[in-house]
Amino acid sequence: MSDSAASAPITLPTYDDVVAASARIAGHAHRTPVMTSRILNDASGMQLFFKCENLQRIGAFKFRGAFNALSRFDEEQRKNGVIAFSSGNHAQAVALSAQLLAIPATIVMPKDAPEIKVQATKGYGAEVVFYDRYTEDREAIGRTLAAARNLTLIPPYDHPDVISGQGTAAKELFEEVGPLDALFVCMGGGGLLSGSALAARALAPDCKVFGVEPEAGNDGQQSFRTGKIVHIETPKTIADGAQTQHLGQYTFALVRQNVDDVLTASDAQLVAAMRDLGSYMKLIVEPTGCLGYAAALAEKAQWAGKRVGIIVSGGNVDIARYCALLAQ
Amino acid sequence: MSDSAASAPITLPTYDDVVAASARIAGHAHRTPVMTSRILNDASGMQLFFKCENLQRIGAFKFRGAFNALSRFDEEQRKNGVIAFSSGNHAQAVALSAQLLAIPATIVMPKDAPEIKVQATKGYGAEVVFYDRYTEDREAIGRTLAAARNLTLIPPYDHPDVISGQGTAAKELFEEVGPLDALFVCMGGGGLLSGSALAARALAPDCKVFGVEPEAGNDGQQSFRTGKIVHIETPKTIADGAQTQHLGQYTFALVRQNVDDVLTASDAQLVAAMRDLGSYMKLIVEPTGCLGYAAALAEKAQWAGKRVGIIVSGGNVDIARYCALLAQ
Repeated sequence: MSDSAASAPITLPTYDDVVAASARIAGHAHRTPVMTSRILNDASGMQLFFKCENLQRIGAFKFRGAFNALSRFDEEQRKNGVIAFSSGNHAQAVALSAQLLAIPATIVMPKDAPEIKVQATKGYGAEVVFYDRYTEDREAIGRTLAAARNLTLIPPYDHPDVISGQGTAAKELFEEVGPLDALFVCMGGGGLLSGSALAARALAPDCKVFGVEPEAGNDGQQSFRTGKIVHIETPKTIADGAQTQHLGQYTFALVRQNVDDVLTASDAQLVAAMRDLGSYMKLIVEPTGCLGYAAALAEKAQWAGKRVGIIVSGGNVDIARYCALLAQ
Repeated sequence: MSDSAASAPITLPTYDDVVAASARIAGHAHRTPVMTSRILNDASGMQLFFKCENLQRIGAFKFRGAFNALSRFDEEQRKNGVIAFSSGNHAQAVALSAQLLAIPATIVMPKDAPEIKVQATKGYGAEVVFYDRYTEDREAIGRTLAAARNLTLIPPYDHPDVISGQGTAAKELFEEVGPLDALFVCMGGGGLLSGSALAARALAPDCKVFGVEPEAGNDGQQSFRTGKIVHIETPKTIADGAQTQHLGQYTFALVRQNVDDVLTASDAQLVAAMRDLGSYMKLIVEPTGCLGYAAALAEKAQWAGKRVGIIVSGGNVDIARYCALLAQ
């Protein structure tokens, strides 16, 4: 995370690490259902398989990576505690994992994070420290606190154990439904996408893997296409879980290696996707969690008759906000 | 269904019929997930197990009973077709089952049924005939059409094959989580409750089984407690799947035999339950589907620390209506 680390060589996680993560989280994370909808299949012309991580513990896939990372702490790390910075779901994921593993947790959260996420994080017994996501640098705050209290920092995406843990969702999807022609994965910092692509490359080598970002914040798309990590201002989008400003060194390398393209979806497309998933699948999905489905829908002509996997990443949205978005 | 049939002796279905139904629907109905929520457990003090029939095909448990009943048609019945009258979910259930089994279907629906249910029913290829639920008798309309066209009438609840099919949800619940201390089941005409109670008596003899009705339409509670089938006016409640006016002869007998008590929930309790299930389980549940959870919450002191099963019966509610209800 420091400047010296940024220039040091890094060892990327592999599918073997995803398999090891899978064993670590077994019995702790839910094996979430893969759902299908005849109505959405008929409407889109695709054969859609939704991996429902909104039904994961803490309401999002982030539990997988956090639990995997914290499971690997040594005794001193466990005693001193963990610190994390997060727009929300990673916060809850680290807080719950820490509680389950009896590790003290400090969470740095944006002060405008959805109330449901703040409350849930505190409910897991974590100490919450707020920052302003438009003016302050959460990574600097996290690093300072970590150094002062001797805490282990678990970043939300750019960490091999986090990436390996996130890859277990796609691993389960492929194991349950077999090979797919395409897999659409939402992308903020690229942790879920990186892990998913590791699973896809190992289990379904012919499957095209797409990352999907909010249209307002396509740093990942720019980075993927230019070959350099592009930094942007915090994007204004309803997809609050994907308001990241840049990929990390691990996720950038893995995305460049294993992903076929990075697409975007507009807020309006996300709202339409939320409505579909609510109406026909009976699932509450947060805006970020709809990125994959929204992009697949936009590309449906290309995937007509094909087997298309979607990672539905999370469902942590205040019901009042959910309804306000759908009223648009 | 006719007056002469009403006085004839009837043979009640047994748990063996539920087992047979289970084999018939296997591979056609979803084996829906049983979900738990640590947050709702902590908040209520109960250990809650939600059988998520809102994730069933057509978005409700009704597919189980309909598919079971239609599977038992003989060749002539299949050729002539099926007719059903329903406030919505049974309509879709019969329509989809008929489509899967290549049986022509006619559905008699209230003209104020939620649009999402009407469209879905037509989408399954059924002919839809409308009636006014406040002024017309759907059973009379159904019987007249059935006689004129030689159709087999499958009523929404008072039929042994329908009841046996509905019992498969509770059977799966007990098989998955083991014995429970209490089971809360929503109750309109009593089909789901009757079948659930058959499963409970066989698989968890010590489990208390409760039916739950809308407060505005407690005909079942009155019937259960007085020992006579009580008829009421169509109740005005947001639980549109439980606006039945009376139990049937099969369901009344089975409820009296196997159910411990019938409780009620108010519309306000249903809205609060919808908000909980949306916020913490990420599930869209229709008002009727919240009856069981709402009643369990009201009785939580009695079931503190106990293992409590809830059948979440369906999720077919227009998203706009869902949001309007939650805005109250």
